[in-house]
Amino acid sequence: MSDNEHTTVRIVDIARMAGVSVATVDRVIHNRGKVSEENLARINEVLRRVDYRPNLIARSLASGRRYTLCAVMPRFDPGEYWADFEAGIARAEAEAVRYNVTVRRFCFDQYDRSSFESLLETLRREEFDGAVIATLFAEMVEPFTRELDARGVPYVFVDSDIPACNRLAYFGTSSFDAGAVAARLLFDRLDPGADIVVGRIVHRGDAGSNQWRNREAGFRSYLEAHAFRGRLHYAALRLDDEACNGRVLDEMFRENPSIAGAVTFNSTCYILAGYLAARRRDGVRLVGYDVIRRNGEMLSAGVVTALVAQRPEAQGYRAVMALCEWLVEGRAPSKVNNMPIDILLKENIPYYKNNII
Amino acid sequence: MSDNEHTTVRIVDIARMAGVSVATVDRVIHNRGKVSEENLARINEVLRRVDYRPNLIARSLASGRRYTLCAVMPRFDPGEYWADFEAGIARAEAEAVRYNVTVRRFCFDQYDRSSFESLLETLRREEFDGAVIATLFAEMVEPFTRELDARGVPYVFVDSDIPACNRLAYFGTSSFDAGAVAARLLFDRLDPGADIVVGRIVHRGDAGSNQWRNREAGFRSYLEAHAFRGRLHYAALRLDDEACNGRVLDEMFRENPSIAGAVTFNSTCYILAGYLAARRRDGVRLVGYDVIRRNGEMLSAGVVTALVAQRPEAQGYRAVMALCEWLVEGRAPSKVNNMPIDILLKENIPYYKNNII
Repeated sequence: MSDNEHTTVRIVDIARMAGVSVATVDRVIHNRGKVSEENLARINEVLRRVDYRPNLIARSLASGRRYTLCAVMPRFDPGEYWADFEAGIARAEAEAVRYNVTVRRFCFDQYDRSSFESLLETLRREEFDGAVIATLFAEMVEPFTRELDARGVPYVFVDSDIPACNRLAYFGTSSFDAGAVAARLLFDRLDPGADIVVGRIVHRGDAGSNQWRNREAGFRSYLEAHAFRGRLHYAALRLDDEACNGRVLDEMFRENPSIAGAVTFNSTCYILAGYLAARRRDGVRLVGYDVIRRNGEMLSAGVVTALVAQRPEAQGYRAVMALCEWLVEGRAPSKVNNMPIDILLKENIPYYKNNII
Repeated sequence: MSDNEHTTVRIVDIARMAGVSVATVDRVIHNRGKVSEENLARINEVLRRVDYRPNLIARSLASGRRYTLCAVMPRFDPGEYWADFEAGIARAEAEAVRYNVTVRRFCFDQYDRSSFESLLETLRREEFDGAVIATLFAEMVEPFTRELDARGVPYVFVDSDIPACNRLAYFGTSSFDAGAVAARLLFDRLDPGADIVVGRIVHRGDAGSNQWRNREAGFRSYLEAHAFRGRLHYAALRLDDEACNGRVLDEMFRENPSIAGAVTFNSTCYILAGYLAARRRDGVRLVGYDVIRRNGEMLSAGVVTALVAQRPEAQGYRAVMALCEWLVEGRAPSKVNNMPIDILLKENIPYYKNNII
């Protein structure tokens, strides 16, 4: 067996599919010699269908040039949101090995601003050809991207966008519209005068992410447009302090008996769900984000009403591939790539991960 | 440029990714010579990640064997459900050209039983190596598959399953659960005592598809479990007779003033939506299936409350690929491949088609 046995479309296949000669396909691909309008259209249609990109590999392998990308993202445990994102990166990396590209992960604590600050110090000393950046600490990401601009390093945003930056592309949902979707799912069976708890994780030294702010804006905008007459109550919750969260929420529910809805604008709605289940508050409708393990369990158990999801694997995969195509082939992606906003209920979550195509 | 320039993973790439020698990878792939447990695990992990399948192509191209598949499906206009399904077939065909596989389409009128009957006559005279079958006329599909069994021709079902048959695989949603999802979306804001209209397209000579029956069973099961006290009213509607449908529905609404919900168990909810919009019956909540153009427009306009969708492109693509892998490589797919059940609201439908990964 030779080491270049291969599994994709060859020029002969393209010629056969387009019903033209190999020489004609060769002329089109190398942009030399004359080809009739009709044949050109047929060949281009086939190239589009098979997503043909020979130059990418040919150039990269011929030059022997290697590329290093870095992925700047939160640390995670298995089953968490960023684990799915990383799985997408790993899948892209497996494909991108053909492009002589390596992806290095640089992780920070998403609940600790200083952790991101010191990671940026590390990155200032590192050499890399492109970066995928999760934009959780937007106000620190922005000045860092100006340094990357100065160094000529392209970067792609995931999770939430910062349009002010000169990013090559964004892969993620429209956070504003994802906020409106959560409001719709929460409000659909809520009395317009009922109150809503908003669970907020207390960050160390951070006022909350830009994604949080955009989702909240979309959420409020939907409620305003639909004659919501209740109040939003902000509950400051802690990641690993169930007793403290219990006290905060007990007091909130005691003082506001008309609370009938709850929402969290990040992946942590399992915290509110755990409280509602423990206190048997079955009447409170709860909506959150992301199909992480603990959220999924609470949805299946009927404690969470609905989850809004945003395909983190696809974000990781497409962000890396976009950088590869740009660096090796000079092919620029769309600036904004909005992922589908998925809606998960108890009834359809069993099938959600079967989304391979 | 040689005609076998290629774009996928080579043995050297796999060796590099697994951190082993090319010779070691070669031993694993050809199942000869000794390899340590650890190296075997690492190589298999890489092979899995890059979805390596050299034998498939090597065998097919070396033997020069050609395969003809047939796709048995309803005729369609652009923007309809089966157009998306066909797009998935076309995408698979573009990839499957490497396997020397051709897909021939055989279409019937999904609203005319005799049309399917005469198509079966045609198929009895045709030679093919495998079939993708849309199971709309289940009671005629079943005896036909026994003929295919006798001929040794493998077949794959899409759209809805007929477990009694010896199909190689099924690609589609769980129709029962998709029915429960529709019930949930409809019932979430409905008074438990309200009545529901069920729109039924009158078929020529058919009592309705098995998908319809399974969705309806799931729908009823959800309502029963959730203390629905209203009644279901079946409206016999026609595909292209707005005036007649108007008369049928006017009478139904006149006689049953407590109707506050509506549902259709196939792609035609735009018919009910058109009626509700024309009569300005804003208070009626309507749920249907499939993001076909006309349904999507009615959802965006706020007439349809929600749509349940099932990724027809993925069904077409995966059905063809499963047959290719079985025929060329002897690799059997899972018997039942349940697609995700997607939920579309006015707020997330703009992003639904951005699902490329």
